[in-house]
Amino acid sequence: MTPPAAGPAAGPDSGPAFVAVDWGTTNRRCFHVAADGSVIARTSDDRGILSVDDFPAEVAALRRDAGDAPLLLCGMVGSNRGWIDVPYAEAPADIAAIVAGIVRPQPGIAIVPGVVQRDELRPDIMRGEEVQILGALALKLVGDGLVCHPGTHTKWIELEGGCMMRLRTVMTGDLLAALKAKSILSDLLAHEPAADAVFLDGVDQTLEGGDLTAELFGARARVVTGQMSAADAASRISGLLIGSDLRAGLGRGRSDVVPLIGARPLCERFALALERAGRESVVIDGETAFVAGARAIMAAMGTA
Amino acid sequence: MTPPAAGPAAGPDSGPAFVAVDWGTTNRRCFHVAADGSVIARTSDDRGILSVDDFPAEVAALRRDAGDAPLLLCGMVGSNRGWIDVPYAEAPADIAAIVAGIVRPQPGIAIVPGVVQRDELRPDIMRGEEVQILGALALKLVGDGLVCHPGTHTKWIELEGGCMMRLRTVMTGDLLAALKAKSILSDLLAHEPAADAVFLDGVDQTLEGGDLTAELFGARARVVTGQMSAADAASRISGLLIGSDLRAGLGRGRSDVVPLIGARPLCERFALALERAGRESVVIDGETAFVAGARAIMAAMGTA
Repeated sequence: MTPPAAGPAAGPDSGPAFVAVDWGTTNRRCFHVAADGSVIARTSDDRGILSVDDFPAEVAALRRDAGDAPLLLCGMVGSNRGWIDVPYAEAPADIAAIVAGIVRPQPGIAIVPGVVQRDELRPDIMRGEEVQILGALALKLVGDGLVCHPGTHTKWIELEGGCMMRLRTVMTGDLLAALKAKSILSDLLAHEPAADAVFLDGVDQTLEGGDLTAELFGARARVVTGQMSAADAASRISGLLIGSDLRAGLGRGRSDVVPLIGARPLCERFALALERAGRESVVIDGETAFVAGARAIMAAMGTA
Repeated sequence: MTPPAAGPAAGPDSGPAFVAVDWGTTNRRCFHVAADGSVIARTSDDRGILSVDDFPAEVAALRRDAGDAPLLLCGMVGSNRGWIDVPYAEAPADIAAIVAGIVRPQPGIAIVPGVVQRDELRPDIMRGEEVQILGALALKLVGDGLVCHPGTHTKWIELEGGCMMRLRTVMTGDLLAALKAKSILSDLLAHEPAADAVFLDGVDQTLEGGDLTAELFGARARVVTGQMSAADAASRISGLLIGSDLRAGLGRGRSDVVPLIGARPLCERFALALERAGRESVVIDGETAFVAGARAIMAAMGTA
């Protein structure tokens, strides 16, 4: 098997050295990375794994777009619902463990494994976020301690010596979307939540142990009793969910500063919420971290 | 305004003395009640308020079916999404407060108000369950202490001296339906949850303060890691949600025995869960309680 290495002959004008694909459930983002590490092109579409039937054809098209540069495929494409079910690397996992778990279905194509935490009481999994974590490590933006990747399924990862030690998933965004699609809260959630005092009150409520499933209904009761507008109720619900997320994710972790990796608007909501928990935070752009992680993996593969 | 009173001339063979309608969001149940209190006919259909456009026509049809006996309309039909928005009675509320809040849009038709708890920190509302509570009180099946009405929106009601003192709503069934309709847990929730040891493990987890939104994802992680079957995961998720419900609803209440009012299968799940919290329970049939409550209200109206 030939590892897809960054071709040493590839200069900045001769097309990408490799293409990194963040291939999720509903979306797909491709980054054409030059030999010097710069991103020379990026595309984003809705060809997530759930809308793809013919993966070999889809991958062949990606390779043509890439001018035959190697492809590094990351995320749910490597799941049992994707192209090839790539076994998870086991936590604790560092970059060597991730690289060791890579599957190469064709020359020039590599699929990155996710990480599994085999634990009787707290089993957990991730697939995709590990690349961003490795990127943040490579960029020295994170060190030992807790890192948070907010999202549909927020991931909290404990790092130690460059190793992903423990993880915990909280299904915050998924729960919000489900409530928005079909529940007594749907109407309220048609409003865009603000990041204001009402939001922070919601954060406090669940961060301090308030009962989420009762407090969620309480947002509606506030509207019915005239205590709160529907728009404010949406902000409160967002706060309740993010406060719950923090309570589950921070656990007994003692990190004073929690790096947040992801899209800026959501990370900023989490940063505000973390302040209520007495934690500082830094926001790390998810795309930057992804590209850095992909480069680190390609480099490690080249030397493996 | 003429209160719809049980016609004294109505014998068991001459049609109902009155018709009580439990008119909810998605379903409607009608009980034709004879002068002696027996139910001589019952119907159930899906003409909940969300599928009715012309309430006057719908009500006229009900009256024809009732042989012009008075109608007692209960539940969401009296909400801002129903026929007429009937103001809530304020907690603490007893049967006199409920009767005082009844609205009579036409002779022979009465709409029962719900109950609102105006409270800065814990506002709450109910509309429909109060009739069943009054019925359970009339039947002397409940006394002072906590009563639980499990469901889409579980209601926990504190009773004292025949008065509904405090209420708390937990959106357990609504949340389960939302997760089933659209979330990473959808596939798992296609399985019917059992009421077994796996279910009770889930109950314990959240009853003891486990983080619901993380534990929910943990049910999926157990399936992915091969620790648990998809069917067992459905049972665990049901347990996690009901454990959360109990934690929110039991609060600091010290009732040793918690009456459960509603449909038997769901009440029995709650009864098993309550055992884990060291509480006994008795199950009170929801329809029996509803008819008894409607009779008590009609009687109180007649003497008002």
